[in-house]
Amino acid sequence: MPPIVEIRNVANFAGQEVTIQGWLYNLRESGRLLFPLVRDGTGIIQGVVVRSAVPPEVFARIRELTQESSLRVTGKVRADQRAPGGFELDVSHVEVLQLVPLDRPYPITPKEHGIEFLMDHRHLWLRSQRQRAILGVRHEIVKACRDYLDERGFTLVDTPIFTPAACEGTTTLFEVNYFEDKAYLTQSGQLYNEAAVMAVGKTYCFGPAFRAEKSKTRRHLTEFWIVEPEVAFAHLDDTMELAEALIAFVVGRVLEKRRPELETLERAIGPLEKCTPPFPRLSYDDAVKILQAKGSEIRWGGDFGGTDETILSENFDRPVLVHRYPSQVKAFYMTPDPVRPELALCVDVLAPEGYGEIVGGGERLADYDLLMKRIEENQLPRPAFEWYLDLRRYGSVPHSGFGMGIERVVAWICGLEHVRETIPFPRMLYRLTP
Amino acid sequence: MPPIVEIRNVANFAGQEVTIQGWLYNLRESGRLLFPLVRDGTGIIQGVVVRSAVPPEVFARIRELTQESSLRVTGKVRADQRAPGGFELDVSHVEVLQLVPLDRPYPITPKEHGIEFLMDHRHLWLRSQRQRAILGVRHEIVKACRDYLDERGFTLVDTPIFTPAACEGTTTLFEVNYFEDKAYLTQSGQLYNEAAVMAVGKTYCFGPAFRAEKSKTRRHLTEFWIVEPEVAFAHLDDTMELAEALIAFVVGRVLEKRRPELETLERAIGPLEKCTPPFPRLSYDDAVKILQAKGSEIRWGGDFGGTDETILSENFDRPVLVHRYPSQVKAFYMTPDPVRPELALCVDVLAPEGYGEIVGGGERLADYDLLMKRIEENQLPRPAFEWYLDLRRYGSVPHSGFGMGIERVVAWICGLEHVRETIPFPRMLYRLTP
Repeated sequence: MPPIVEIRNVANFAGQEVTIQGWLYNLRESGRLLFPLVRDGTGIIQGVVVRSAVPPEVFARIRELTQESSLRVTGKVRADQRAPGGFELDVSHVEVLQLVPLDRPYPITPKEHGIEFLMDHRHLWLRSQRQRAILGVRHEIVKACRDYLDERGFTLVDTPIFTPAACEGTTTLFEVNYFEDKAYLTQSGQLYNEAAVMAVGKTYCFGPAFRAEKSKTRRHLTEFWIVEPEVAFAHLDDTMELAEALIAFVVGRVLEKRRPELETLERAIGPLEKCTPPFPRLSYDDAVKILQAKGSEIRWGGDFGGTDETILSENFDRPVLVHRYPSQVKAFYMTPDPVRPELALCVDVLAPEGYGEIVGGGERLADYDLLMKRIEENQLPRPAFEWYLDLRRYGSVPHSGFGMGIERVVAWICGLEHVRETIPFPRMLYRLTP
Repeated sequence: MPPIVEIRNVANFAGQEVTIQGWLYNLRESGRLLFPLVRDGTGIIQGVVVRSAVPPEVFARIRELTQESSLRVTGKVRADQRAPGGFELDVSHVEVLQLVPLDRPYPITPKEHGIEFLMDHRHLWLRSQRQRAILGVRHEIVKACRDYLDERGFTLVDTPIFTPAACEGTTTLFEVNYFEDKAYLTQSGQLYNEAAVMAVGKTYCFGPAFRAEKSKTRRHLTEFWIVEPEVAFAHLDDTMELAEALIAFVVGRVLEKRRPELETLERAIGPLEKCTPPFPRLSYDDAVKILQAKGSEIRWGGDFGGTDETILSENFDRPVLVHRYPSQVKAFYMTPDPVRPELALCVDVLAPEGYGEIVGGGERLADYDLLMKRIEENQLPRPAFEWYLDLRRYGSVPHSGFGMGIERVVAWICGLEHVRETIPFPRMLYRLTP
C-alpha cells in the first residue's frame, strides 16, 4: 500500500507512489488525458490520467467524477515547474468514497453566485480556494498575536462572556436570560483586564465579543473576536509602542508564512511590506485640520466617521496612530491629559488603504476620586462598579492597554471589501445561519 | 536612574541597583530590619531594609506600608540561596504610589476567608500567589493545546457563539434575544467543525461554550472553554491516539515550564510524571464489569455518573480511554460500530485521581441515510440540520474528533477540588459577579 500523504507534503515524495485523500475540485478532459484537480484541505494538486496507462474502468470512473466527490487517488508524484505547487500526480488508481449525484450537483459551481446565495451556503463556500486562503491568514494572525504576547511575558487571563451589568449603556448589548436573572454578553474584556493586570503585571484576553449593532455596514459583525493586552505601570506612549510593534509583527508573520494565501487572494504585497515601525503619529487636533483641509465637515470635538478614517489613512503608507481625542467622545475610564484635561490619553490606530480603525486603547483612570466622578457624570449604576472601584482603592497604579479587532485586521491584511468573509460563520443583523 | 526590572528577570541584575514596580504582599519587622515582600505580577521578592542604612523617613515610610499598597522600590539585587527565587533586594529607596488606608484595609488578609467572600472578591483574590499560579498553569495548558495542533497542520476555524437552532434539546441552552429573532449560545463547535474540516482537512476551534446547567456541583460552570479538534478521514482509533498524544503533550509542557507554579499549589508531581502514552484503553463493556465488581449499581446500557468515573479512574495511574458506549447514551451523530451496531464509535477520557471526564469524542456519522434516520428518531428539527446534511450530500468522508474541557484539565493538573478556581471569573448557577 502506498503511503497516505497530505498534499502540502508531496514534495517529500517526489518520484514515489502515494495516496491522496480528498475531494475533486475540478476536472478537465483533453483528448486521451484527464486532469482531475484534487484538494485535501492542505493543498491542491493536479492529477494526470493517461487513457492508455490505466485500466478502462479506472479511466471511466475518473471521467464521471463530479465536483466535490470524495475520493482516494493513487499515483506517482512528479515535479513539474508549471504546476501550481510544483508537483503533479500521475494517476494509476482511484477509489471513490462518495459520488455527488448528477441530479443534485454541488451547489457552488465555478460560475458567479450572488452573495446571499454564498452566505446561505457558507458551510460549503469555505471549501473554495479563496475562503481557505482567508482562513489560513486568519489563523496566522491569531497565532501571531498570541505568540507575540506570550513571548513577552503576558499572561492570558480569559475574561467572562456573561457580564452582570450594562456598563456602557444597554442599546448595543445582547441580553441573556440567566436563570432567574439577566446577563449581558461582553463587549470587551477590558474592565476585567484591569483586575487581572494587578495580579499578573501584563495580561491579555482573546475571545469573542458581541455588539447588537443595528447598522448594516461592511465593517460590522454582531459577533467578533478581539485581543486585548493590558500592562501595569504603562502609560499612553508605552501602549502606542506596543500596538505598533504588535501590528508590525503580525503583518511580518503573515508575509513570512502565508505568501501563497496572499497570492490566492491577489493581495498586493507592497503596501503590507511597507508596514514597519515607526508608524506615523498624529494628534486628534492635527487630524481634524487635515480632514477640514480635505473638505470634511468634521468640527473639533466630534468623533470621526468611517469616511473621515478613510481620508486620514490615505495620507499615510502605513498604519497611523491618532492620539488624544476629546474626552467627550471616548469612554468614561480614560485618563485625562495632564496638560489639556479636555483630552483623553487615548489612541486609535487606523489601518492603511481605508480599512478603518483596527485598534482602540489608552491609559485608564487610576485615580479613585476622578473615576467616581466620571461614573456619576455618566449616570452609571455605581453598585455594578464597586469591584472596579476596588482596583483604585487597593494599590492603584497607572495602567494602559488596547483592543485589536481581529476581523478588521483580517480584512485589511487579506484586502477584503467586507468583514463577512473574515470570520468562518459571520453573524450580522440579518444573518444567524448556517 | 536604576533600570526598571521585572522580578522574573532579577537574576540578570545580580549586584546591580534596580527599581521594581509592584505591590506590597507582606511586611515583617525584626529589630532594626524590615522585610517587605513585594510582588509585581511576574514574581515575588523579599526586600531587606536596614534602619541604619537608609534615611529615617525611608525606613518610616516602608514601616507604615499596608498590604497591597502600590510602590516603586529601589535597591541592590543580592543572590541568597535561602530566598524563594534565589534573590533578595537590599532596599535603599521607596516611592509609594498609593497607600491603602489603615481604616479601609485590603479585604483579603493572610487569615482564612470563607469561599463566598473570596468569590465576591475574585477581582482581588486573583492577586494571591495561589491564584496567580493557577492562572499561569491555565495559560500554559491553553498554549500547549494550540501549539500542539498548530505544529501538526491544524487550521484554527473559530466556530460561532450564536447558533440559530436548539440542536440537542433546549433545556440546557441559554437563549438570547437576537433582534427580532431568538439565538442560542453554543454548547460545542463540533457541528461547525464538521463543515470546516471538509475545507481544511484538519481543524480545531477553541472558545467559550455555555451550558445552562441547573446542578450545583464542583465540576460544572455555565461558561467554560473547550478545544475541539476534528480530522477528515480519521477513524475512532486515530482520534483516540490524538487525544492521548495531546493530553500527554499538555502535561509534559506544564511539567517543563510551570514547576514553580505546581510547587506553589503543592501539587504532587509524581502522578503527572506518570502521564505518558500509551494510556490504558477500556471498552464500555469491561468498564461496566469493573464497576459492578466494585459494587456500583450501574447496569449495561446506562451512562456513568461522577462516582462511577472516579471508581474507574482509580484503577489506573494515568488517563484511561473508555470506548464504545451504547449509542443510546451518546449524541445522535455518532457512527455505529460495524461489528456491534448498538455501540457508538466513541471515546471518553477520564482523568486520573478522580477528576472525571476531560475528553469526549468519536467518529461522526458520514452516511446520509443513517444520519437522516437519527435526526428523525431524535425528533430534531430537520430544517435546522439541512446544512449539516449537506456535508453528507457533497463529498462525505469519514471524520472524527473530540472536545477537551479546559477547566477540567486545569482542575486535574493543578489538583483543585472545585472548578470555580480554574477560570478567572467563574460563572455558575448562583454566580454572575464580579
